Amino acid sequence: MKSYEEIAKITYAGPDSDEPFAFKYYNPDEVLAGKPMREYLKFAMSYWHTICAEGVDMFGSGTLDKSFGQRDPMAKFRAKADFAFGLMDKLDLDYYCFHDVDVAPEGATVRESLENFRLMVAYLKQLQEKHHKKCLWVTANNFGDKKFMAGAATSCCADVFAVAAAKVKACIDAAIELGATGYVFWGGREGYETLLNTDMGLELDNLARFLTMARDYGRAHGFKGDFYIEPKPKEPTKHQYDFDVATCMNFLRKYGLTGDFKMNIEANHATLAGHTFQHELRTAIVNDAFGSIDANQGDLFLGWDTDQFPTNVYDTTYCMLEVLKAGGFTNGGLNFDAKTRRPSNTLEDILLAYIAGMDSFALGLRKALALRADGRLDRFVEDRYASYRSGVGKTIVDGTATLESLSDYAMGLDKVDVPSGRQEYLETIINNVLFR
Amino acid sequence: MKSYEEIAKITYAGPDSDEPFAFKYYNPDEVLAGKPMREYLKFAMSYWHTICAEGVDMFGSGTLDKSFGQRDPMAKFRAKADFAFGLMDKLDLDYYCFHDVDVAPEGATVRESLENFRLMVAYLKQLQEKHHKKCLWVTANNFGDKKFMAGAATSCCADVFAVAAAKVKACIDAAIELGATGYVFWGGREGYETLLNTDMGLELDNLARFLTMARDYGRAHGFKGDFYIEPKPKEPTKHQYDFDVATCMNFLRKYGLTGDFKMNIEANHATLAGHTFQHELRTAIVNDAFGSIDANQGDLFLGWDTDQFPTNVYDTTYCMLEVLKAGGFTNGGLNFDAKTRRPSNTLEDILLAYIAGMDSFALGLRKALALRADGRLDRFVEDRYASYRSGVGKTIVDGTATLESLSDYAMGLDKVDVPSGRQEYLETIINNVLFR
Amino acid sequence: MKSYEEIAKITYAGPDSDEPFAFKYYNPDEVLAGKPMREYLKFAMSYWHTICAEGVDMFGSGTLDKSFGQRDPMAKFRAKADFAFGLMDKLDLDYYCFHDVDVAPEGATVRESLENFRLMVAYLKQLQEKHHKKCLWVTANNFGDKKFMAGAATSCCADVFAVAAAKVKACIDAAIELGATGYVFWGGREGYETLLNTDMGLELDNLARFLTMARDYGRAHGFKGDFYIEPKPKEPTKHQYDFDVATCMNFLRKYGLTGDFKMNIEANHATLAGHTFQHELRTAIVNDAFGSIDANQGDLFLGWDTDQFPTNVYDTTYCMLEVLKAGGFTNGGLNFDAKTRRPSNTLEDILLAYIAGMDSFALGLRKALALRADGRLDRFVEDRYASYRSGVGKTIVDGTATLESLSDYAMGLDKVDVPSGRQEYLETIINNVLFR
Amino acid sequence: MKSYEEIAKITYAGPDSDEPFAFKYYNPDEVLAGKPMREYLKFAMSYWHTICAEGVDMFGSGTLDKSFGQRDPMAKFRAKADFAFGLMDKLDLDYYCFHDVDVAPEGATVRESLENFRLMVAYLKQLQEKHHKKCLWVTANNFGDKKFMAGAATSCCADVFAVAAAKVKACIDAAIELGATGYVFWGGREGYETLLNTDMGLELDNLARFLTMARDYGRAHGFKGDFYIEPKPKEPTKHQYDFDVATCMNFLRKYGLTGDFKMNIEANHATLAGHTFQHELRTAIVNDAFGSIDANQGDLFLGWDTDQFPTNVYDTTYCMLEVLKAGGFTNGGLNFDAKTRRPSNTLEDILLAYIAGMDSFALGLRKALALRADGRLDRFVEDRYASYRSGVGKTIVDGTATLESLSDYAMGLDKVDVPSGRQEYLETIINNVLFR
Repeated sequence: MKSYEEIAKITYAGPDSDEPFAFKYYNPDEVLAGKPMREYLKFAMSYWHTICAEGVDMFGSGTLDKSFGQRDPMAKFRAKADFAFGLMDKLDLDYYCFHDVDVAPEGATVRESLENFRLMVAYLKQLQEKHHKKCLWVTANNFGDKKFMAGAATSCCADVFAVAAAKVKACIDAAIELGATGYVFWGGREGYETLLNTDMGLELDNLARFLTMARDYGRAHGFKGDFYIEPKPKEPTKHQYDFDVATCMNFLRKYGLTGDFKMNIEANHATLAGHTFQHELRTAIVNDAFGSIDANQGDLFLGWDTDQFPTNVYDTTYCMLEVLKAGGFTNGGLNFDAKTRRPSNTLEDILLAYIAGMDSFALGLRKALALRADGRLDRFVEDRYASYRSGVGKTIVDGTATLESLSDYAMGLDKVDVPSGRQEYLETIINNVLFR
Repeated sequence: MKSYEEIAKITYAGPDSDEPFAFKYYNPDEVLAGKPMREYLKFAMSYWHTICAEGVDMFGSGTLDKSFGQRDPMAKFRAKADFAFGLMDKLDLDYYCFHDVDVAPEGATVRESLENFRLMVAYLKQLQEKHHKKCLWVTANNFGDKKFMAGAATSCCADVFAVAAAKVKACIDAAIELGATGYVFWGGREGYETLLNTDMGLELDNLARFLTMARDYGRAHGFKGDFYIEPKPKEPTKHQYDFDVATCMNFLRKYGLTGDFKMNIEANHATLAGHTFQHELRTAIVNDAFGSIDANQGDLFLGWDTDQFPTNVYDTTYCMLEVLKAGGFTNGGLNFDAKTRRPSNTLEDILLAYIAGMDSFALGLRKALALRADGRLDRFVEDRYASYRSGVGKTIVDGTATLESLSDYAMGLDKVDVPSGRQEYLETIINNVLFR
Repeated sequence: MKSYEEIAKITYAGPDSDEPFAFKYYNPDEVLAGKPMREYLKFAMSYWHTICAEGVDMFGSGTLDKSFGQRDPMAKFRAKADFAFGLMDKLDLDYYCFHDVDVAPEGATVRESLENFRLMVAYLKQLQEKHHKKCLWVTANNFGDKKFMAGAATSCCADVFAVAAAKVKACIDAAIELGATGYVFWGGREGYETLLNTDMGLELDNLARFLTMARDYGRAHGFKGDFYIEPKPKEPTKHQYDFDVATCMNFLRKYGLTGDFKMNIEANHATLAGHTFQHELRTAIVNDAFGSIDANQGDLFLGWDTDQFPTNVYDTTYCMLEVLKAGGFTNGGLNFDAKTRRPSNTLEDILLAYIAGMDSFALGLRKALALRADGRLDRFVEDRYASYRSGVGKTIVDGTATLESLSDYAMGLDKVDVPSGRQEYLETIINNVLFR
Repeated sequence: MKSYEEIAKITYAGPDSDEPFAFKYYNPDEVLAGKPMREYLKFAMSYWHTICAEGVDMFGSGTLDKSFGQRDPMAKFRAKADFAFGLMDKLDLDYYCFHDVDVAPEGATVRESLENFRLMVAYLKQLQEKHHKKCLWVTANNFGDKKFMAGAATSCCADVFAVAAAKVKACIDAAIELGATGYVFWGGREGYETLLNTDMGLELDNLARFLTMARDYGRAHGFKGDFYIEPKPKEPTKHQYDFDVATCMNFLRKYGLTGDFKMNIEANHATLAGHTFQHELRTAIVNDAFGSIDANQGDLFLGWDTDQFPTNVYDTTYCMLEVLKAGGFTNGGLNFDAKTRRPSNTLEDILLAYIAGMDSFALGLRKALALRADGRLDRFVEDRYASYRSGVGKTIVDGTATLESLSDYAMGLDKVDVPSGRQEYLETIINNVLFR
C-alpha cells in the first residue's frame, strides 16, 4: 500500500475504479439537481480526532504519534495546524471544527492558556486564507481538565463556572475572528454521576444562565451564526442534561432560548440515546431546530461512543433524506466527529477513513436524490394521510372539531378500516433504489 | 399455604412476624411525621392487570382464569367488579384505576361499547359507595383494537381519531361521575413503526389537537383533576412520541398545554428509556409537572415492559425521597401497574404480590423519612453548592454577571479546587440508614 | 395495488423492473458459480408466522384473520394447509417448517391433540407430493400451553417432562414421515424467571437427559437428519438456557451431544444476545456446528424479538459469506422466521414481505459471491496472519514452542511492529462491491 | 471531614455507630457459623485501581495524583508499594492482586521491563513478610501497550504472541515467588474489532496454545494454585472471546483445559454480558469452575465497565449465597476491582470506598447466612422439584426412562398441574430477612 507521503491528492476516480486512495462517489463539483455536491455536503474535518487523538483508550496507550516531530509546545501546535490544512487540501475538505485545546497548548493558568489560544487563532486565520478553507464551528473544551470534574456551567463551584465562561468568551471571539458560522456547546460534564449529591434544579438554571450570557455576548459582538447544543445521553457523565433533541428542546423552551440555539446532531449520540439518527434529525426538523451534523457512526452492540467513520449507506441515505427535507444546510455542515479504529494506526488510515466517510455520504446523497426522484415513498406518505384533507379530518386540522362533534360523528360509524402500513414494501423500495 | 378464600383481611403484623399473608411494614393508619401512611402512599389497584390479565404472553396462553365462573359478558364484568372491590377491602387499598375496556365488555359498535361502559360505570359508582373506595384515575384504551394499529390521535385515518375522541369523552364523563382526581393519556400506539411511512409533524400536531380538545371538554364539564401523560419510550410501537418526561414536557410547552397536564411516571417505563425511576421523578419535579406514579419495577436485563410488582427497597426509598421533595401527592397516587409473573398463577399470588409491593413502598417511605431525619444527605448537597450564595456565584444566580465580568474574574484566579463528590460515602450513608 | 387473489405467480423480473410483486434479485434457477440459486438459499416458509399468527401483540388484538372462512377445527387447519402450499407455489418456495400446534388443532387431552396431529401430518404429506415441496424441519411447541409455564424438559414437574417427551416423539415421527432433514429444539420456556426458585443444576441435567432420549429415539427409528438447538438469550423467560451458540456448545460438550446436534441460528436471537448475526454464524462454524438459519432481522433499538423480514443487505451479505465459508447448507436452509409488521395486515403484505426477504438474501448471495471473486478481503486476512506460517509463528502453530522458548525469543526482540487493521479500508471494499 | 493522614486504623464500629471512617458490618475476626468473617470474605486490594489509576477517562485527565512525590521511576514504584501495604494495614485487608505493569516501571525493552519487574517482586516479597499480607493472584498486562493493539495470544503477529508469553512467564514466576494461589488471564485485547479482518478459528486455536503452554510451565515449576479466565463480553475490543462463563467453559472443554482453569467472575463484566452477577456465579458452579471474584458493581444504565465499589446489598447477598453454595473460597477471594468515581478525588475517598465495599459484602454475608438459617428459600426449591424423586420423575433422573416410556405415561395423564412459582412471595422473604 502506498505511504501517506506518496499520495498527492485525492480525486474522483468514479464508481468503476479500484483505486483505494480515491473517491468513487464523491465528486465535489458535480452538480446534482442544480447544486454541486460540496454545497449539499459541506464536509468538515474534526481537529480533535484527526489532528490530536493518538489512539489512547481506557485500557491502552496511544498507537499513532501526532507530535509531528516537535517538542516545543507552540511549534508542535503550529506543525499540527500545517498538517491539518495540508490534509484538508488533499481531501478537498472545505471546513474544519475545533475546541480551544485542540489548536493551542494549555498554559499554567487560564490566562496563559487563552493567550496561547489567541496566538494560534491568528495562525489558523493565516492558514485559512492561504488554503481557502473555512471554519464551520468552534467550541470550548470545558470537560477535560480536572477542574471540570463536576461540570462547567453546572459545576457545584462558582469559580469553575467563571473559568468556563472565560473560555467560551475566548472561543466566541475566535469564531468571530475566523468567520465561523456556528458555535457549539457540548456539555461533556454537564450532568451528574449520582443524584445523591446533585441539585438538578439549580444546575439546570445555571446552565440556562450560562447559555444566555454566551448568546448575549456573541450577539453583542457581531456573531451572526447559530449556537448549537449537541445532545448526548451519557458518557462521560452517568447522565447528561442534553440527553437527546427533545430534552434539549424542552430546556431551550423553558428558558426562552429557542431561535438562537439549534441542534448539532451526532449519529452516535442519537443511537446511545435509544433513537435512530434519522429520528433525531426528524425531531429537530419538526421542532424548527435542525442545525448541523456530527457525521459518524456508533456500534449498536456497544454502549459507548465509538465515533467510527460512517460507512453504512442506509444510514447516510436516511440522513441525507432528512437534510433534503430540511432544505439543506444553512450555517451547519457535516463534521466528521470520527476517529480511525485504534489498530488503524497509520496516517494512511486517516486518509482511507475520510474517503470511506465522504464516499458513504456522497453515495447517501445520490441515493436520497434518487429516492425523491423515484417518488414512491413520498407519494405513499402523502396518500396515507389523505383523510385529514377533507371531511371530518379537515375539521380536526382546521380546529373546528370538538370532542363532542367527533364523538357524535364516531357514533355514526359502522366500521373503520385502516390501510396497511406496508413497511416491508417500503423497505423493498429502498433496496431497489439503493441497489439498482 | 392457605387458599385465597381462607384469608379474611390483610393486617399489619409488624416487622418481626413471619406471617406471609400480612403486612410487615405497611400500617395504613400509623402516623409518621404528622400524617398517616395511607395519605403518603395513596395506593391504587390497577384493574387491567389485577382483574383482567390472565398471564398470556407472546409465546403462550393464559395461566390464570379470571372469568369468575361467568359466561354472559355483563355478568362477567359485574363479577369482576365485585371481586375487585372485595380485593381492595382485603388489602385495605383506597383507590383503583381503569381503562374503559377493563370494566365493561366491548360491543359490536362504538356506540354499543360505550353504552356497556356507561352501565358499568354506574355499577362501579355503587360499589365505590358501598366499599368506601375512590377512583384515582380513568383512561381510555385507545391502543388494543385493530383499528388503532396505526395510532389513535396520531392515526393516519381521521375516523380513528374520531373514535378515539368518542372514547376519551366517555372516559372523562366517567372520571367526573366517579369523582376521579386524574385522567391519564397513555399513547400506546401514538408513535411509529417506521419513519418511512410517517408524517411526524402532522402526527404530533394532531396529538396536540386531541389533547387540547380533551382538556377543553373536561374543563367545560367540571373536571377539576389533573390530566396526565404517561411517558414510555417504546413498546408496543417501535418508537413512542411520549418517550420520557423531558420529551413530554417539550411537547406540552410547544403546544401550550403545561399546567393542565402533568406526568404519570412509571418506573418500568423510566428504565426502558435509559433513565432511573428517580431521574424521571426529579425531572418532572424541576419541570413543575410531578403528578402520579405507576408503581412497578422492570428488569434491567430485559428490553420489554415486565411490569413486576416493586420489591427493590432502594428504588422505593429513592422514589419516596422524591415524592417527599415534591411535597407529596395532590391529585395523584401510587397505582400498582404490575402483574404477577406468569407462573405465579393463583389468586393467592395476587395477594402476595400486592403485599410485596405495598410493603416495599411502606419500607421505602420509612427509610426516606429516616434519611431526611438523619440529614446528612441534605446537608451535603446544601454545602456543595454554597459558592452560589455569595461572591461571584451570587452574581451568577442573581443575573448581574456577564460573560465578560466572569472572564475578568477568571483571569485573576490562581487555581480552582473542586471538592470531592463523595459518591461512595453517600452510598454508605444510604446503606447505613437502610440496614440500621 | 393488486389484490392477493389477482397475483398468479411471483417471477423474476430483474433489477431494472418496477413491478412490486416480482423478484428483482431472486432467480431460483439461475446458476451462480456452478450452482442454482435455490440450492444456495434453500428458502423455507415458517408455518407459525405465515399461516397462523394474526398480529396479536402484548397490547392489542389481531389485525389479520387467518381462519380462511372455516369454523370447524380440522377443516380450518386443512384450509390453512391448502393456503400454505398455494403460497409456496406462488413464491416458488421449496421448503416449510412447523410446530405440531401450527398444523393441527389442540384437543382436550394430549392423546387427542396428537391424534389430530397425526391426521394432519398425513394431509401435509399428500400436499407435499402434490405440490413438490419438502419439509425442512419439524419442532414441538413445548412452550405455549399453561402447563409449560415453568419449562418443559426443565419443568419442576416430571409430568410436564413426560408430556413434552410425548410431543417430541410425535414430532420426530412426523419428521421421519415427511422426510424432513432437520429436527429443531427451541427451548422457549427452558430457562428461569428467577434464580430464587430454580435448581439450575438439576434443570440442565434434565435438559440433557431429554435431548439424549430424543436423539436415541430418532436414530433408532431412522431419522438421519440433524438435530438443532436454537439459541435465544431471553424471552419468553427472563433467562434462557440456550443463550447463544457458545452457551449451547458448552452444554453439548458437557453432556456428550456434539455431532448429532447442530445450531439453528436466528438473526434476531443473535442480536438479542449481544452478538452480530455474523458472529454467531462464525462461532458455529469454528465449533463444527453450523446447521440451519432462521432468517429474519431484529431492531437493535428494541429489546424483544421483532422477527422482521430481513431487508438489510449488509446483513444478508455477511450471512451468505459465512454460509459460503461453511460450504453451504447440507441438511439446513433459510427459514423465514419472520412476520409482517402488525399494521401490514393484508395477505398482499405477506407476499410483499416474502419478496422483500427472499430478494434481500438473493442480493446478499450475489454480493457475497462478488466479494469472494474480488478477493481483496480474503487476501487481506490471509496476509495478516502470515507470521504464523514460518519462523517463531510456525513453532507456535506446530506445537514445538514452549513458554520458555518464546520468552527467550522475545528477549531478543528490539521492537515489534503490528500492521494496521485497516478496518475503514475494508469497509470501503464492502461498499464498493455492494454499490458497484 | 478528617484527612487521610489523621485516620490511623479502620475498626469495627458496629451498626449503630455514625462514624464514617469505620466498619459497621465488617468485623474480620467475628466468628459466624464457625468461621471468622475474614475467611469467608478473603478481601483483596486491586493494585491497578487503588495504587495506580488517577481518574483519567476518555474525555478528561487525571483528578488524583498518585506519584507520592517521586519522580525516579523505581523510587516512585517503591513509594507506591509502601503506600499499598500501609493502606492494607489500615483497612485490615489480607490480600492484594496486581499486573506486572502496576508494580514496576516499564523499560525501553521487554528485557528491561521484566528486570524492573523482578526487582519489584523482590521488594513486594519483603513487604508481604513485614506486613503479614498475601498475594491472591498475579496477572500480566498484555493489553495496554501499542503492540497489543491486535491482541496478545490472538495477535495476528507471532512476535507479539512471543512477547506476551515472556510476560506471562515472568508473572507466573512472580506468582510462585510470592506464594500467590491464583494466576489470572484477562484477555483485554483477545477478541476482534471487526470480523472483516479476523481469522477467528486460528485466533482461538492460538489462544488455547498459549494457555496450554502457560499451564504446562506453571505446573512444571511448582505452581499449585488455580489458573483463572476472567470473562468479559466487550471493551476494550468490540467483541472479546471470553464473553461470559459459558463461552469460556466451551473454550476450555474444546481444548481440554478444564480442571486447571477456573473462572474469575467480575460483577460488572457479568452485567455487560446481559447476565446477573448471580447467574454467572451459578453457571460457574454448575460447571465445576467457580474460582475467584472481582468484586465491584456496574451501572446497568451504562454500557461500559464502570468498576464501581459494590454497595448494593441485594447483589452482595446474592453473591454470598452462591459463594456459600460453592462451599466458600479455596484458592480464590474477593478482589475489589473497583475505583473511586472520578470526582471522588482524594485519598480519603479511597478509604471511604473500601469501607463501602467491604461493609456491603460483610452485610451480604450476614444476610446470606440469615437466609440459610431462615430456610424458607431452600425448602421452597427442595419441595418444588420433589416430583423427580419418585415415580416417573425418578425414572427420568436415574436414566431408565425413554422417549417411548414417557410418551406412554403421558398418554394416560388426564391433566397436569404445575404449582405457582411464587416469585413475589420469595422476593418478600428476601426483603423480610434483609430488613428484619
